[in-house]
Amino acid sequence: MGEHREQSVAYEPLTPTAFLQRSARVWAHRPAVVDGDMVWTYADFYDAAQRLAGVLIAHDVAPGDRVAVLGPNRALLLSAHYAIPYASAVLVALNHRLNEDEIAAILRHSGATVLLVDSDFADRVPMIAANNPNVTLLLGGPTGTLDGLWQDATWHCAPVEDENALLALNYTSGTTGAPKGVMYTHRGAYLQSVAMAYHTGLDTRSVMLWTLPMFHCNGWCFTWAATAAGATHLCLATIDTAEIWRQIRTAGVTHLNGAPTVLTMILNDPDAANGPAPQTVRVASGGAPPSPTLLKELTQRGFAITHLYGLTETYGPAAICEWQPDWDGADDIAVKVSRQGFGNVVSENLRVIGADGADVPWDATSIGEVAIRGNNVMTGYFNDPQRTAEVVRGGWFFSGDLGVIHPDGYIELRDRAKDVIISGGENITSVEVEQAILSHPAVLECAVVAAPDNYWGEVPIAYVTCRSGQTVTADDVVAHVRVQIARYKAPRAVVMRDELPKTSTGKIQKHVLRVDAAADWAVMSR
Amino acid sequence: MGEHREQSVAYEPLTPTAFLQRSARVWAHRPAVVDGDMVWTYADFYDAAQRLAGVLIAHDVAPGDRVAVLGPNRALLLSAHYAIPYASAVLVALNHRLNEDEIAAILRHSGATVLLVDSDFADRVPMIAANNPNVTLLLGGPTGTLDGLWQDATWHCAPVEDENALLALNYTSGTTGAPKGVMYTHRGAYLQSVAMAYHTGLDTRSVMLWTLPMFHCNGWCFTWAATAAGATHLCLATIDTAEIWRQIRTAGVTHLNGAPTVLTMILNDPDAANGPAPQTVRVASGGAPPSPTLLKELTQRGFAITHLYGLTETYGPAAICEWQPDWDGADDIAVKVSRQGFGNVVSENLRVIGADGADVPWDATSIGEVAIRGNNVMTGYFNDPQRTAEVVRGGWFFSGDLGVIHPDGYIELRDRAKDVIISGGENITSVEVEQAILSHPAVLECAVVAAPDNYWGEVPIAYVTCRSGQTVTADDVVAHVRVQIARYKAPRAVVMRDELPKTSTGKIQKHVLRVDAAADWAVMSR
Repeated sequence: MGEHREQSVAYEPLTPTAFLQRSARVWAHRPAVVDGDMVWTYADFYDAAQRLAGVLIAHDVAPGDRVAVLGPNRALLLSAHYAIPYASAVLVALNHRLNEDEIAAILRHSGATVLLVDSDFADRVPMIAANNPNVTLLLGGPTGTLDGLWQDATWHCAPVEDENALLALNYTSGTTGAPKGVMYTHRGAYLQSVAMAYHTGLDTRSVMLWTLPMFHCNGWCFTWAATAAGATHLCLATIDTAEIWRQIRTAGVTHLNGAPTVLTMILNDPDAANGPAPQTVRVASGGAPPSPTLLKELTQRGFAITHLYGLTETYGPAAICEWQPDWDGADDIAVKVSRQGFGNVVSENLRVIGADGADVPWDATSIGEVAIRGNNVMTGYFNDPQRTAEVVRGGWFFSGDLGVIHPDGYIELRDRAKDVIISGGENITSVEVEQAILSHPAVLECAVVAAPDNYWGEVPIAYVTCRSGQTVTADDVVAHVRVQIARYKAPRAVVMRDELPKTSTGKIQKHVLRVDAAADWAVMSR
Repeated sequence: MGEHREQSVAYEPLTPTAFLQRSARVWAHRPAVVDGDMVWTYADFYDAAQRLAGVLIAHDVAPGDRVAVLGPNRALLLSAHYAIPYASAVLVALNHRLNEDEIAAILRHSGATVLLVDSDFADRVPMIAANNPNVTLLLGGPTGTLDGLWQDATWHCAPVEDENALLALNYTSGTTGAPKGVMYTHRGAYLQSVAMAYHTGLDTRSVMLWTLPMFHCNGWCFTWAATAAGATHLCLATIDTAEIWRQIRTAGVTHLNGAPTVLTMILNDPDAANGPAPQTVRVASGGAPPSPTLLKELTQRGFAITHLYGLTETYGPAAICEWQPDWDGADDIAVKVSRQGFGNVVSENLRVIGADGADVPWDATSIGEVAIRGNNVMTGYFNDPQRTAEVVRGGWFFSGDLGVIHPDGYIELRDRAKDVIISGGENITSVEVEQAILSHPAVLECAVVAAPDNYWGEVPIAYVTCRSGQTVTADDVVAHVRVQIARYKAPRAVVMRDELPKTSTGKIQKHVLRVDAAADWAVMSR
């Protein structure tokens, strides 16, 4: 579509990187990035991004090259979201919790020629260099020089010629097989960014605390959305809940995002008992269905919740649980808000497709697979037409998530397709059992998975952690569940744990627990 | 770009008409359109739009046909913003203040095959029918049947295949020559709508009072933006300031838009003295530079002002005077806010280009012409390449507005190019003189235009109206101006009037006053 650029006064390719150019003019002197003691204005931020682009050009980065970044939620990684596209290259933000082999696999798969490493991770450089001899490593921090070149770099900011060109690859935290690089375009990320800024009410007075990893769906595109709004990016290198409360109480935090596990950690920090946040904090929760219990507790601490739903394949949150004004003050508000809702303002309508290929009725009961298409859906997995074809069928992306549609049109997830437990021929959705367990006041987290059983086929096994200083017995848990949901759905065994296995993005690793459950149930059912 | 639709799960043409489809799901039971006693939910609104599309199809409207609409700010005209595109046709919203000859000229120029007429204007139908024998006239109101067909119509909602296709023609309130039909695309209107919803903070709790004509730039795209937000469109058939205050005081109005002349009328209604609005009303002002005096008064009455700037050629407001947090409580806030500011969040950067073809320095003094390009700039004047070429040069749309850039980057308009007064070789911008006059407490409105003068070339002549019950003399006005601005800029004559001539969109008609000024000055300077 490059031809439009020359032809028409009325066409400009959409790209979220342009938001920094606008904010550098409009909000030139407003705080853009706060990283420890360092404060960048928007003028500084744009300057840094252009210099970093110049560094990449000086290292022979050519248009279309993939440039990877390894860093915590700090200014280097954030800058790279602009600098790499400004060099006409493709951003590959790496999950820094991956091990060296996993990182090497992604570098190979993406064909990255350059890797930017935040100086926080300097100790990892020798191993990465040894593993990846063909990749140019550049070490730098936000305030220091980048490989001695940042300060002397030539400013660079290449125009985007094609809005449908590749902007970023986001590798999913998949559990097996070759890594999958989800392809984002400039157009898709632009639209998703606008939707995120609109739905969460970001503006230049907003202070967004970076509790969500920027490497995760490019921080659900808030790396660009908060810039579009002229808001302040408040960096946070690690999930330190005491530090999060300190920032909430002293730095005027107005926005933060995170998966339910992160929000649970924040609520369980001792500082949470010292009263609610001094200002309203808008929390966007996504990545897994939040339990009604969690939502209730967040509300009690004065957080304003927006429940979002999406996948890496949908640029993060494609759906939003919109709040109806007549919900104000409703008793069952947490139940309402725990639903996934509707496509966001730039999304197409989400479908829930039953086994017969038709949309399920709005009966809150009929289960189907959530399917999505539109501008904020990936163009595919990089160099992987086969696995792309497995999830894109008939023009729709099939999410792998199972859900229902309520009579009011709200979608609610029941489970990942692979997490459904089929016991005695009945489907048990693990989410329903988990939500029943989580409503027990002593329970912090839980996961329910299937264990093979000779008689029932599968049975549900629960893994549970307790809140600090509290205890609960397996019998208590089962009794608590049985008064809420059908008896056959109650876990056949409850295993107390100190912690649950999690992916680097904070999701509970059910595939690990499934192995444990098979072994545990084999012993228990003897 | 239609090919993308089939090729990719990741592409959907952008169109603002899709916002109604989303809101009909998400906000199905929320009030969408209030027109007198009639209240449509979003489900009703979508239903009506599809039926109206069906009516058009039944009357042989084919893809690409132009369909005109003549109506006040009521449900028919609003529905037409969706129904006509749903029939794959092009919307031509007519300025109902035009006379029958002007309407006939636009119908001929646009080649409209069908004209929808609101039953409020039933008395105009015979004359229009006689003048335009080849146009099918359909008469209808929002609550009744449309030509007997609406209730029985087949629902119709055609998909948009090409986002760069023509969505609407907006005829400018030009003063001479053939009408100019400004071409809007689906993509442009979509992006502008998102920007308007974002910048004015529209959401489903918002109630937008339609003080701005929907026929004017499609109501600055708020016809679509308010729908995107799930807000309530509160119709208003005529600018009745008593009714406006009644709605503000009783219907929970949160948003209204208008040109400074309309806002001045609202402030001068007797009811304005009965205290400020019971809730915050966000007022977007545009269409002409608001005077600091007007902005101050609006603020005093409790309105929250957003100053926007644009032209019909830019889908309405392409620019926004963003409020810097450090302006809060500033003494000169009205002066700051009276500037036009920056491109909005979806706009490209606006340029101010001097006579030498270069961008003017940020010195608040050097004058140039405002130039714009990007997605929310028209694709041209319909069937008029010659006049398109007059304003589109080198890939930029030249607005005809003259302005400066302040040291903080804010653009401020000085004048329309043709409104500059050249007196004794010095440029006098009429806006500067007008703002000085408007700061006089007895003055309601004024306009300053050039009159030919044998010695000076041109001299500034002021036309002034007084606030109700107040008087001011010409000498008072001149004395008031001379203490504020350079002596040579003061009007050489001040003519008191009961009212000023205005276009149908409320802009003062300086070309009319220029004729008067030539005659008046010829007499006075004898």
